[in-house]
Amino acid sequence: MHRFALRVEYDGAPFSGWQRQDHAPSVQGALEDALAQIDPGPHAVAAAGRTDAGVHAAGQVAAATLARPWDPFRLSEALNHHLRPLPVAVTAAAPAAEGWHPRFDAVAREYLYTILNRRAPDTLTRNATWHVRHALDADAMARAAAHFRGRHDWTTFRAAQCQADGPLRTVDEATVTRTGERIVFRVRARSFLHSQVRSMVGSLERVGAGAWTPGELRDALLAADRARCGPVAPPGGLVLAAVRYPRDPFA
Amino acid sequence: MHRFALRVEYDGAPFSGWQRQDHAPSVQGALEDALAQIDPGPHAVAAAGRTDAGVHAAGQVAAATLARPWDPFRLSEALNHHLRPLPVAVTAAAPAAEGWHPRFDAVAREYLYTILNRRAPDTLTRNATWHVRHALDADAMARAAAHFRGRHDWTTFRAAQCQADGPLRTVDEATVTRTGERIVFRVRARSFLHSQVRSMVGSLERVGAGAWTPGELRDALLAADRARCGPVAPPGGLVLAAVRYPRDPFA
Repeated sequence: MHRFALRVEYDGAPFSGWQRQDHAPSVQGALEDALAQIDPGPHAVAAAGRTDAGVHAAGQVAAATLARPWDPFRLSEALNHHLRPLPVAVTAAAPAAEGWHPRFDAVAREYLYTILNRRAPDTLTRNATWHVRHALDADAMARAAAHFRGRHDWTTFRAAQCQADGPLRTVDEATVTRTGERIVFRVRARSFLHSQVRSMVGSLERVGAGAWTPGELRDALLAADRARCGPVAPPGGLVLAAVRYPRDPFA
Repeated sequence: MHRFALRVEYDGAPFSGWQRQDHAPSVQGALEDALAQIDPGPHAVAAAGRTDAGVHAAGQVAAATLARPWDPFRLSEALNHHLRPLPVAVTAAAPAAEGWHPRFDAVAREYLYTILNRRAPDTLTRNATWHVRHALDADAMARAAAHFRGRHDWTTFRAAQCQADGPLRTVDEATVTRTGERIVFRVRARSFLHSQVRSMVGSLERVGAGAWTPGELRDALLAADRARCGPVAPPGGLVLAAVRYPRDPFA
């Protein structure tokens, strides 16, 4: 058997999320169906991050085990052929060690969340932004985001149904920058809890709108109380940008 | 009667182009239909550039004459309400002088053309790029683009059906830059001929692919012969980014 690392890009809008489900289209299901066209299987594709319904990926990393020693380039070409016309693409493929796991071996995930902050509807980047019509103070959001950095109990910013062992995680980078009408939140951590990024963004939006001060966001974090979280931001603005490993599997 | 300048953004994919047509959806038609909902009319909306089918705009500028002295903000809000769910948005509105014309008063147009240069299909920016699967040499394209600058007879890079008076135009800026998998051609001129930008890009692609040298592109330009043009690039990669006036109508 031959293990392969795959870098995967997708538009999350038509999918119920990464994870295969019985009666809804998923990215994992699309990849496993494409693999079944070229290799006997059965196939179980693992991923670095199980993105929610509507969340996009530019640099998701997955792994598959195949019966044949495929040339990596031909493997990506064959998968992309069978993935059509779904908005899922394999942008890189490389052989991996037998025990290599895209989720457990990852040392960092980087997410981007984009808000379109203006009155007029979004026409050019629909499904890829959260459209917020009221004015947001991106400087206040940036000051608030600085409180996210470091090791914290993330109970406030973690979905009630989160199945992770514990609420402690370390956020290495959390920045907010505005470019014209676009506000981008960039966050990096070894790993995230369920709905953590969208929970962070929903609360940052409250700061930007002036409903919370940056200090109140810090207090909500320190309270470790899910009831103190702002509304969870919608999935369309979120992109899994990159996953890092001790050694780049595609280098 | 009250004249207004409108800045308009649209996704060109569902439209037969800017110009109103009897039996096909157009951006002009969408705006005139929205205006008819709020003002007696009849309405004839003029634009700075009559974009072709499938071409997008981030900064198209249009003008309309209304019976009522609308507050500009309320006018843009009302038009955006009636434009829904079409991917057309009025991003700014301002009063204009009675004789002000978005096309004849413009002193510069700026277009961006984006190529996604990689093997894998495009999933996140479909309809907004030209997907070129073979390798392109962006440095060679940049050297070729430099030949476009200045005053030239553009017969080679002008559609046969172009109705402009003559083929002479001055290109003030023409640059090619690569950022990862994306190659962006930026071009600015007082005005352009029909299909000029897409004709330029189709020929730049030939240079990037190694089929032409930069000098051969210059020779094709100097030949002033439509038969010397490369294939015309598809419309989806093109965006009318901005239109400039002696005085910014929205300032």
